[in-house]
Amino acid sequence: MSSIGSIASSSAPARLTVVASHLSTARRKVVVSRDLGPDAMQLLRDNANLEVVLWPEDRVCDRSWLLENVPGSTGLIVLFTEKASPSGPGLKVVSTMSVGYEHVNLPALHKRGLRLGFTPDVLTDAVADVSVMLALMASRNAAYGVTLVHQGQWPPFAPFTLCGPQISTMQDSPTRTVGFLGFGRIAQATLARLVAFGITHCVYTSNPGSPPKLALESSLLERHPTLREVRRVDLDTVARESDVLFVLAPGGESTKHIVNEGFLRKMKKSSVLVNTARGTLVDSDALAKALREEWIWGAGLDVLEGEPCIDVNHPLLTEPRCAIVPHIGSATFDTRVGMAVLAARNLLGALNGTQMPAELDLASRLR
Amino acid sequence: MSSIGSIASSSAPARLTVVASHLSTARRKVVVSRDLGPDAMQLLRDNANLEVVLWPEDRVCDRSWLLENVPGSTGLIVLFTEKASPSGPGLKVVSTMSVGYEHVNLPALHKRGLRLGFTPDVLTDAVADVSVMLALMASRNAAYGVTLVHQGQWPPFAPFTLCGPQISTMQDSPTRTVGFLGFGRIAQATLARLVAFGITHCVYTSNPGSPPKLALESSLLERHPTLREVRRVDLDTVARESDVLFVLAPGGESTKHIVNEGFLRKMKKSSVLVNTARGTLVDSDALAKALREEWIWGAGLDVLEGEPCIDVNHPLLTEPRCAIVPHIGSATFDTRVGMAVLAARNLLGALNGTQMPAELDLASRLR
Repeated sequence: MSSIGSIASSSAPARLTVVASHLSTARRKVVVSRDLGPDAMQLLRDNANLEVVLWPEDRVCDRSWLLENVPGSTGLIVLFTEKASPSGPGLKVVSTMSVGYEHVNLPALHKRGLRLGFTPDVLTDAVADVSVMLALMASRNAAYGVTLVHQGQWPPFAPFTLCGPQISTMQDSPTRTVGFLGFGRIAQATLARLVAFGITHCVYTSNPGSPPKLALESSLLERHPTLREVRRVDLDTVARESDVLFVLAPGGESTKHIVNEGFLRKMKKSSVLVNTARGTLVDSDALAKALREEWIWGAGLDVLEGEPCIDVNHPLLTEPRCAIVPHIGSATFDTRVGMAVLAARNLLGALNGTQMPAELDLASRLR
Repeated sequence: MSSIGSIASSSAPARLTVVASHLSTARRKVVVSRDLGPDAMQLLRDNANLEVVLWPEDRVCDRSWLLENVPGSTGLIVLFTEKASPSGPGLKVVSTMSVGYEHVNLPALHKRGLRLGFTPDVLTDAVADVSVMLALMASRNAAYGVTLVHQGQWPPFAPFTLCGPQISTMQDSPTRTVGFLGFGRIAQATLARLVAFGITHCVYTSNPGSPPKLALESSLLERHPTLREVRRVDLDTVARESDVLFVLAPGGESTKHIVNEGFLRKMKKSSVLVNTARGTLVDSDALAKALREEWIWGAGLDVLEGEPCIDVNHPLLTEPRCAIVPHIGSATFDTRVGMAVLAARNLLGALNGTQMPAELDLASRLR
């Protein structure tokens, strides 16, 4: 990314004038709720017409600090840890470094004519990787195995000690069904990985109002010749038929506790549930009961309702077949740099009147 | 599997005579060092001409019990937890429920004209699954993440907290090299899975005396169009070039500590090491040093030298980027039943003069 300096020394006079005019006016304040790393912060600071006001600490930004600093700013970059409703008359854009936006008050933004940037796609592969990891960890007793080793209790080999169901197919067991609640890009990337494990059938649910995805289904079957079926179904069917079920729907009120006691009771005893979306989608108490009473085999969770305030007495922490990692779905260096840079570019696009690389269409979203 | 009884009632008189002749002779003793589960045990007990002597406890068989019971037996089924050298003049076959046979005294067996059965192939998919799981766990700080959650220390979200290298490729980072020490069926099955994560290059070592595997390399490139290269290399090259390195060579003296300090020092700082073969291949002290001093990023281990006697003070247990599970590579119900049944069939094949489904060719192995 070129700095203003390098543009000034290499561009035509017309551009120079523009830069000078920017420099001569008051700098526009942008508020950033967390250090986004050198790549993204440099991108912002390279814009000499911006005054970057950054939360100075290495912890979640205080709401009071945001409320104090946002007034008078033209742009705001937040993480999903901040409720992004603070505003001011000059604010033009909110840019969240996240794929989800349930922490953002969409109607309020839309009403005030603000634009919203988010960071989809760039984290697809990282989250799909963790989705597969958690499916394997849940089925293969991995979290419990790690604990046993750390307690000095490595169990001696025995024919069926620590056995679990097998996710991959094999000669004597040649079919497997994977299910998805929500069938966006992360779900499709997860499916693509699992096809290489021999998964033969895929069922999914998606927004009931959305049109059939026949072209998508055909293209998936064509791309993956060993996949025999991709079928949109209702909630009951996805619960009943899945050997591995991935929760990959958006968060928010409309999907809250979509995986509840009734849903879990319909699942196969040998199945595993994976949630790499938002904690609110799964009723933790119901899931703990399902594991305790063996309605399902296991669970792999990257998210938990109420995170990060999860007490050591949380009912899921005592379930040996529940593998829980602390929301690391997108936590790779490549992906997080990509998300931070995209968040910065979204903000700059809106402020400079160029394109925002990833803008949420608020009008159609709220329709 | 039909029982002798059902054969007797449905077969021609000639078969009946054979059965009767078996029944009239003394039953042949076979010794089984551990309960192999209902499928395999039934298979053995359905042979009325066999007297099955089974270690009665749910723990590793005492060597003294084996030494006492093997004399006078014609067949022996063991796990890899038993040193299978006890013998007697009538012994015809040793059948191990394992893919490895470093616990078996091959020269002694060969000298006495005994046959050896083992259980390859049937566990390929289960071990490939765990290999991928451990690669993901090691790169994504999963074991440490599980521990944090269980300690009530779920870290609040921050842009780079708990980040690791990304195994899958993405637009801004479009190549990855996977390496294999040993390139048998498990390695190839692991590669097939990783291609779906976007892995573009594969390097491997194999037995220096073995001929080039050009046909195999071509067929892998043909089967996986996004894979750009499959190349047999020396140890130095596999250490230097791998982003993820899988140890999948046989155990035994010739491969002991093949991953040592010198090897680890050549690896990339961002790389992860996965061992799903035998603990002896990796020098644990050298690996602990490599992790502590950040020569490599992380490690995922299904096996550890000295297992199952792993003390809580083992140097690898204090490394947060070391994910260790207690030898669960083949631990799925489907696979372990398959291994147990194959071990039983190997024994029956040798004793009944029919084919052993998986016999190790001792003569060529010892050549």
